[in-house]
Amino acid sequence: MPVENDGRPDHHRRGGRVLRRRTLLGTAVGAGAGLGLGAGAAPGAVGRTRQDEAGGAGRDRIRVTILLYEGCTALDAVGPYEVLCRVPGVRVTMVAKEAGPVTSDTGELRLVAERSIRDVHRTEVLVVPGAGNPGTLAMMRDTEVHDWLRRMHRRTTWTTSVCTGSLILGAAGLLKGVPATTYWAARPVLKDVGAIDTPGRFVESGKIITAGGVSAGMDMGLRLVQLLSDTRTAQAMQLGIEYDPQPPFDTGSPEKAGPELQELALRLVEEAAG
Amino acid sequence: MPVENDGRPDHHRRGGRVLRRRTLLGTAVGAGAGLGLGAGAAPGAVGRTRQDEAGGAGRDRIRVTILLYEGCTALDAVGPYEVLCRVPGVRVTMVAKEAGPVTSDTGELRLVAERSIRDVHRTEVLVVPGAGNPGTLAMMRDTEVHDWLRRMHRRTTWTTSVCTGSLILGAAGLLKGVPATTYWAARPVLKDVGAIDTPGRFVESGKIITAGGVSAGMDMGLRLVQLLSDTRTAQAMQLGIEYDPQPPFDTGSPEKAGPELQELALRLVEEAAG
Repeated sequence: MPVENDGRPDHHRRGGRVLRRRTLLGTAVGAGAGLGLGAGAAPGAVGRTRQDEAGGAGRDRIRVTILLYEGCTALDAVGPYEVLCRVPGVRVTMVAKEAGPVTSDTGELRLVAERSIRDVHRTEVLVVPGAGNPGTLAMMRDTEVHDWLRRMHRRTTWTTSVCTGSLILGAAGLLKGVPATTYWAARPVLKDVGAIDTPGRFVESGKIITAGGVSAGMDMGLRLVQLLSDTRTAQAMQLGIEYDPQPPFDTGSPEKAGPELQELALRLVEEAAG
Repeated sequence: MPVENDGRPDHHRRGGRVLRRRTLLGTAVGAGAGLGLGAGAAPGAVGRTRQDEAGGAGRDRIRVTILLYEGCTALDAVGPYEVLCRVPGVRVTMVAKEAGPVTSDTGELRLVAERSIRDVHRTEVLVVPGAGNPGTLAMMRDTEVHDWLRRMHRRTTWTTSVCTGSLILGAAGLLKGVPATTYWAARPVLKDVGAIDTPGRFVESGKIITAGGVSAGMDMGLRLVQLLSDTRTAQAMQLGIEYDPQPPFDTGSPEKAGPELQELALRLVEEAAG
């Protein structure tokens, strides 16, 4: 075991889990520097009671609820989840019409919804991810989901979407006259749901925040951390997921990509979504 | 239904699914521009036979296998998945020691492993995601997983990792003398597994590619698309997930964040990973 036989001075190997933790993740900023990597009781730590029911009492005061559905795009949900889930006081719960595994747009990944929307009556933060055409269209027609979205929205602190999730919010009637964005190729549809097509990686309009396509949910997620907690925590979470993006290309927006890559991208996305 | 009653001329509403598809995602680059959004048979499309067994025959020539395990970090797995899963000829399969739901590091998200590693005997691309300390340490000690990693690695085209996944590859003996990277705070551990700590968002060393922390798997994933397909496809996939990053802060690397945010980030990550 490399961790056990790492050639470090003996005191680095004593003390069981705590020192091994420091060995793994603590050395970069120095052992003993007040990292609070010991078991529990870190200074300033806000305890989490993970055994609590989502929506229950306990010290997780901020409920973040992410709606999964058949055909949704996995990264739309997992991007915001990953930046929000470690924020003190936040508990993220994946929900769907029925609890259980939900298949993503490509059919190659399943995420588990822990609860049915029928059992979720309130959330501070609602996140609606997007999908390829089949998933988006199904949700734009699903009146049971629309009823639930409208009920949740009445008492949310923030109602948010990623990618074509905004079209689902719009189909539920929540974007009438609201500046919003969506997946780059779907922006012309925003007006069809009564929204005001507005440029931006994410667009804040009162308590509604809509993000652009797929990966934009990470950027919106960091903004949500700032709103739910504070700037330092949001900045720390950016480092926590080492979000120092260096894509090998610079073709992430339709303007930068140009028409030929736009066509190819849409074809690949459509084929994968069946 | 906004899509059905959108005030467009009548011919836009005829033709069922195909035209609705164009309405949703096709208008940005113009209907009839050869997008191939019709049902199947798009020009230049590489067919996918999703019903095939992973590892079976059919037109999915490139098997990408992502190892899930208890405590792994969801975005480490979903980032590469999301950029690779739509590449023509690629099939991504999530695997774990046992098929079924696998709980991520925070305990708040479960991803489903479709197959047990015992049933997976070959893959072109192997991806090992990282984890918090508990998950990473468990995998660094798991000889059954190490045996499987070594067997896979013998015949892979690319053996890759995200975040502390490189420490798991290293514990399996695959990084002896290999330039590699890992999660920023774990870089001092690389030498303990015989690797050469090397800066970079991702580091290519022969057929081994190791990415930095969590979100770096997306950048590495785009490079993999280029290696497995071509530059145009990789660029199109960057647009496909609208990966035009605009985080609201610039604290994604330890250097940019500074020591105080490093401490806070590690504390938040550690607490969430239990």
